[in-house]
Amino acid sequence: MVATSVSSSHLVQIAQKTRCEARKLAVLSTIERNEALEAIAQGLESAIPEILAANETDCQVAQTEKISQALYARLKLGETKLKAAIAGVRDVAKLADPVGAVQIHRELDHDLILKRLTCPLGVLGVIFEARPDALIQITSLAIKSGNGVILKGGKEALRSCQTLVKIIHQALSRTKVNPDVVQLLTTREEIKALLTLDEYVDLIIPRGSNSFVRYVQENTRIPVLGHADGICHLYIDRAADLDKAISITIDAKTQYPAACNAIETLLIHQDIAETFLPKIVEALQAKGVKLRGDELTQKFVKIKAATAEDWSTEYSDLILSIKVVDSLNSAINHINRYGSRHTEAIVTEDGETAQTFLNQVDAAGVYHNCSTRFADGFRYGFGAEVGISTQKMPPRGPVGLEGLVTYKYQITGDGHIADTYSGKDAKPFTHKDL
Amino acid sequence: MVATSVSSSHLVQIAQKTRCEARKLAVLSTIERNEALEAIAQGLESAIPEILAANETDCQVAQTEKISQALYARLKLGETKLKAAIAGVRDVAKLADPVGAVQIHRELDHDLILKRLTCPLGVLGVIFEARPDALIQITSLAIKSGNGVILKGGKEALRSCQTLVKIIHQALSRTKVNPDVVQLLTTREEIKALLTLDEYVDLIIPRGSNSFVRYVQENTRIPVLGHADGICHLYIDRAADLDKAISITIDAKTQYPAACNAIETLLIHQDIAETFLPKIVEALQAKGVKLRGDELTQKFVKIKAATAEDWSTEYSDLILSIKVVDSLNSAINHINRYGSRHTEAIVTEDGETAQTFLNQVDAAGVYHNCSTRFADGFRYGFGAEVGISTQKMPPRGPVGLEGLVTYKYQITGDGHIADTYSGKDAKPFTHKDL
Repeated sequence: MVATSVSSSHLVQIAQKTRCEARKLAVLSTIERNEALEAIAQGLESAIPEILAANETDCQVAQTEKISQALYARLKLGETKLKAAIAGVRDVAKLADPVGAVQIHRELDHDLILKRLTCPLGVLGVIFEARPDALIQITSLAIKSGNGVILKGGKEALRSCQTLVKIIHQALSRTKVNPDVVQLLTTREEIKALLTLDEYVDLIIPRGSNSFVRYVQENTRIPVLGHADGICHLYIDRAADLDKAISITIDAKTQYPAACNAIETLLIHQDIAETFLPKIVEALQAKGVKLRGDELTQKFVKIKAATAEDWSTEYSDLILSIKVVDSLNSAINHINRYGSRHTEAIVTEDGETAQTFLNQVDAAGVYHNCSTRFADGFRYGFGAEVGISTQKMPPRGPVGLEGLVTYKYQITGDGHIADTYSGKDAKPFTHKDL
Repeated sequence: MVATSVSSSHLVQIAQKTRCEARKLAVLSTIERNEALEAIAQGLESAIPEILAANETDCQVAQTEKISQALYARLKLGETKLKAAIAGVRDVAKLADPVGAVQIHRELDHDLILKRLTCPLGVLGVIFEARPDALIQITSLAIKSGNGVILKGGKEALRSCQTLVKIIHQALSRTKVNPDVVQLLTTREEIKALLTLDEYVDLIIPRGSNSFVRYVQENTRIPVLGHADGICHLYIDRAADLDKAISITIDAKTQYPAACNAIETLLIHQDIAETFLPKIVEALQAKGVKLRGDELTQKFVKIKAATAEDWSTEYSDLILSIKVVDSLNSAINHINRYGSRHTEAIVTEDGETAQTFLNQVDAAGVYHNCSTRFADGFRYGFGAEVGISTQKMPPRGPVGLEGLVTYKYQITGDGHIADTYSGKDAKPFTHKDL
């Protein structure tokens, strides 16, 4: 299989076709969409050898091109990972249908009924890393939520992605879902073109490096679900239980340092700095964490000096900056200034202090006495996660299937006109929730 | 009073101050915010003569500058309109508090509790027409929803706005709400500067002409609530009750032609065109509506020819384009191509046809057998409307107070770490809704 460069006008045609077929997908029943997911699961199951062979070729090429070990680990599928991804398709089928939920049901007047119903967004544009299993998951979530999807995977996974989409198309052709709802782009140039298609694409979900996400955010008028930075803080209050503080710090920094919900800065109240700092420094260093401290911190422990830049750096690595603050308020101000509104946590036994922190810190997630690493759609019980958003407007934080739907207002009447309810003899509305 | 030009760095200071005080407003209780609203109502009441005098000066200057009658009507306050606006402040106080609503309350594990709570956005930037009463309404909605607000009214209302804000500041100084949460900009240059303050302003609400709203949408990275175009359609199906069809058409076009939810194009099924067209043309012309028809329409009635441009024109006036379509599907395709996703309606007695229309038309509002003019926050029973959004992502359609809040996830634990729930001996989450 060979990647073919697709011109921008060809991409418009693809997007139009996707949009057209997505409109039909949008009105299929829950059962019909779930049947399509089951067909995909079966199709993938019977093509396991073919998929693994394509992936093996991708892996061999990647090795000759000397890609990093981390990238290779994501690219490599293997039977276990593939079977888990197929099981994931059936898990998505089992999730509650996000489409058609009645959010408002209200009588405006006799026989004039307002409903607010969830409905699919339309077409999603998802740009993801060289992870073939991500393609399977994204496609399942798109079909479950009634959306068409235009996919672009990392170039190292090209053959894997092409094989997967071919099999998904074959499977869908036996269902009510038109295969055209799932499209695969194969070149980097197409990403740029995709970002201009605000007439046909309703949401862009970029996955990958911070700089890539920022590039997407700055180069499209299409709404973007995701986040660039993940600068999270943990504040150890003067009323903290120090054992909890140590255990949470270690977890939040070291359990998976590359995750966006890992902490980058530890804030410590000055009243406990002398006691706590030697302990936490020892514990962190035992885990291989490199430390950088502000002036006050350096009075208590011998670690490298932090620079101004450290407070706005996402290390994504076993590095942590430490700052001693004189009050809860200073901690909140530091977080609201440098945090990326992702997830922020406090350790304290003082309920009032905790409440002030939870109220005043401006972030999608605000935690008390637990690790920032809980910021995750699966851990929240959403069943699936399509991304974590750090924007202020909803959807915010870990976003499950509800991030892939919107709503519309439906009114059914019997010849009702607005004039009846206007002017001097205006009839009043009943506004009765049903 | 004289307008003072404010430099961009001064504007940053204003925005910072607003943001800082808005954070404190955000954590006030429902009662404290409602007390602030009552203080504003009382302050305005006791300053009625002063407000009317300032407005009278604005009106005199406007008259010498020969502003349009429509603009003058909006600018002119008068005692009745002012008292209604003051009553509106107390109405907003009576609305349900949009802040602090628990949307999710879930046990993740023993003593590890997740809550999703609504919270204010932060700071709103509202740019509105020369309508002093709008300032009163917007300020009330901002305080009710716990947000700071930076206001910029039309230049003709400068003295009215300055007087109102002075009185609002005096009133707030006697409450828990810091007067700095309400700021007034007075120059056109400041709008441009305001649009760049994405670090301090969370939502821009532009009111005014389509071109102004489009300018705002295209010149800011801050989320914008509103819509540029309002091209709405009414489709008269072959199974329509023609009496309902006439009455709804007249209402949707003539009840308030300048409204965004008035229709611009009437689509008529060919099977009823011969019967319906003469009737509706007569009824519309009796109301002074100028008509433009496509080729098929002109076969049945003598009206001006519509050009291609007509289908994408928002007349905002007593003008209507008419097109005869060969099927429901053609009507849906026309609407999905030319509509601005605002509000679209069908008249039919065929339930299945209606359902197909409601399902497949892509718009914030889809109506059956009633006028498009119902698209309005008050008519929907939201108590207040902050704008109508035609974007795909929520909030969509008429937006009430819920459009001025977002949410945050709070987790409280007792030293819980993510590592406990990871790897081989992972503890399962309980995920029990409380």
